Amino acid sequence: MSAPVPPDGRHVLDRCRALVRPALREAVGRTHPWVGEMAAYSFGWCEVGGAPADACGGKGVRQALAVLGAEAAGAKGSVAVPGAVAVELVHAFSLLHDDIMDGDATRRRRPTVWKAYGTGPAVLAGDALFALAVETLAEAPAGPRAVRLLSQALQDLVRGQADDLLFATRPWRGAERVRPREYRRMAEHKTGALLGCAAALGALLGGAPATTVSALDRAGRHLGIAFQVVDDLLGIWGDPAVTGKPVHGDLRERKKTYPVLAALDSPAAGHLCALLESAADPDAAAGLIEELGGRSAGLAEARRQVRAADAALSEVPLRAGAVAELRSLLDFLVRRDL
Amino acid sequence: MSAPVPPDGRHVLDRCRALVRPALREAVGRTHPWVGEMAAYSFGWCEVGGAPADACGGKGVRQALAVLGAEAAGAKGSVAVPGAVAVELVHAFSLLHDDIMDGDATRRRRPTVWKAYGTGPAVLAGDALFALAVETLAEAPAGPRAVRLLSQALQDLVRGQADDLLFATRPWRGAERVRPREYRRMAEHKTGALLGCAAALGALLGGAPATTVSALDRAGRHLGIAFQVVDDLLGIWGDPAVTGKPVHGDLRERKKTYPVLAALDSPAAGHLCALLESAADPDAAAGLIEELGGRSAGLAEARRQVRAADAALSEVPLRAGAVAELRSLLDFLVRRDL
Repeated sequence: MSAPVPPDGRHVLDRCRALVRPALREAVGRTHPWVGEMAAYSFGWCEVGGAPADACGGKGVRQALAVLGAEAAGAKGSVAVPGAVAVELVHAFSLLHDDIMDGDATRRRRPTVWKAYGTGPAVLAGDALFALAVETLAEAPAGPRAVRLLSQALQDLVRGQADDLLFATRPWRGAERVRPREYRRMAEHKTGALLGCAAALGALLGGAPATTVSALDRAGRHLGIAFQVVDDLLGIWGDPAVTGKPVHGDLRERKKTYPVLAALDSPAAGHLCALLESAADPDAAAGLIEELGGRSAGLAEARRQVRAADAALSEVPLRAGAVAELRSLLDFLVRRDL
Repeated sequence: MSAPVPPDGRHVLDRCRALVRPALREAVGRTHPWVGEMAAYSFGWCEVGGAPADACGGKGVRQALAVLGAEAAGAKGSVAVPGAVAVELVHAFSLLHDDIMDGDATRRRRPTVWKAYGTGPAVLAGDALFALAVETLAEAPAGPRAVRLLSQALQDLVRGQADDLLFATRPWRGAERVRPREYRRMAEHKTGALLGCAAALGALLGGAPATTVSALDRAGRHLGIAFQVVDDLLGIWGDPAVTGKPVHGDLRERKKTYPVLAALDSPAAGHLCALLESAADPDAAAGLIEELGGRSAGLAEARRQVRAADAALSEVPLRAGAVAELRSLLDFLVRRDL
């Protein structure tokens, strides 16, 4: 007898994307054609002007979590489709609006929607995706509870984005500086809430009891923090050929990322503060952050959050096959190129 | 015996505002404090920075329609409060985002939110109001059906705003010009859908049957078109001291408003086209629009839509007192200073 081969995260994503895509396309097709084109562009389905394309539209992690949430609860993955569509629409909406707020000109190696179509139209396209998400869930069988789960995640998304925007205005040193625990809360809200909501919605639509819905929500929130911290590590030490981002890009942009904030908690952080304040030498800053333990603190935090996600999955009875796929997805997302 | 004194539209608005305000303030208080300040500023409750204010926050027509919808259905107005809060939040959200899309720097004689706080923060504040609206309704007793009503209105809002933005890019003459019937559909979506949704939500929360909910929805949609056409008439021929807008402001901004589009449907519109294309002489254009029948067509259209709203209210059994208040509100809104 040979040991079972662990499922591959990428295959899990592909399977769930294929299951959800027809309903996602149908939902986008319900809005105004011009707005629908912007939405389709953001999903990588078309070029500016509407010509069909097959560009990268993101990994589709949220739809996969919804499908796996239903399967883990013992239901067919297809019952999760309205939830999967809703969370993908909300994710797309939040990217459209965040790109405006952050002034980001490219995403997945293409111009962002506001850059390609203008700020006003991009605001409107985001609103349309948001409205489609609510409509999709309101018409699903588990209606009111499902919409409540989604609206709580939306509130958290706003809180996380607000804190993230405000972090940029705070100093690097002193009592007003951003602490790692504030960062974790921001990341839980900005990234974790929707991942948790995705898995929880899937379980809810799959008929799971409240304890299971809540455990999957918590697992997703831990995954979100881990994912964000890993993203930060890659933003400083990742291989530009893999990440598609410039070397030390996050330091050049003076982002308050987890490794930086952890390093600034060291009593010897004075020189790093001066470097960050002057934004003079990102290479030296990266070296100093590593010396001060920022990189290892980030790695430890990511591992801690993955363990907490794992623990949440172990608390409730779930179907083994789906849990194996959930774990493979977790691995795929947070191990990446570390 | 003396004839009953018709209720005063302004008093109706004041009564409903007083009933809804505590719950509206509570809802806004649930979001992130920074985002909540922007929302409170947009409602006229505070200045930039958070100091309390008592500025004009709008008439509150939508909340009044929700309260009157419930009362017309024979229920207490208070049962409509979650619906009233939701529609006011959605209205505030749409103003915040529309002001960004339209580049409008002032609203109700104060700087718009994007002008006072920045575009990114204003996008976020709008998103927060949207999410609060959905959350408020999802937690109300009539949950799923109420959320469905709201999400349909949201879709229509997006359609109307998209068409309005696209109208600006279309020519004044030829087959591609904007026709009055397209304008009516745009106005129904952009303004009527949320007014109809407000009254319908009130009726739904008041336990009304589907035919009553639908009749109130239709009445609100007709009111929306009437309101928009009246706004257009005031935008050209209104008294600047009353409207707070410059003389012929809409013509200077080359807006495709109803009186203009109606005048352009005349076979003798060639000279008007030339004037509008060159944007040279708004005073002459206003005179020509009147000569070509644009002003009287607008007045006739507004009256027609008010009659249609009245007819919708007569189709179903409603409590007489509430209907009298609804009619007084209609009068107050569309007669204004014509």
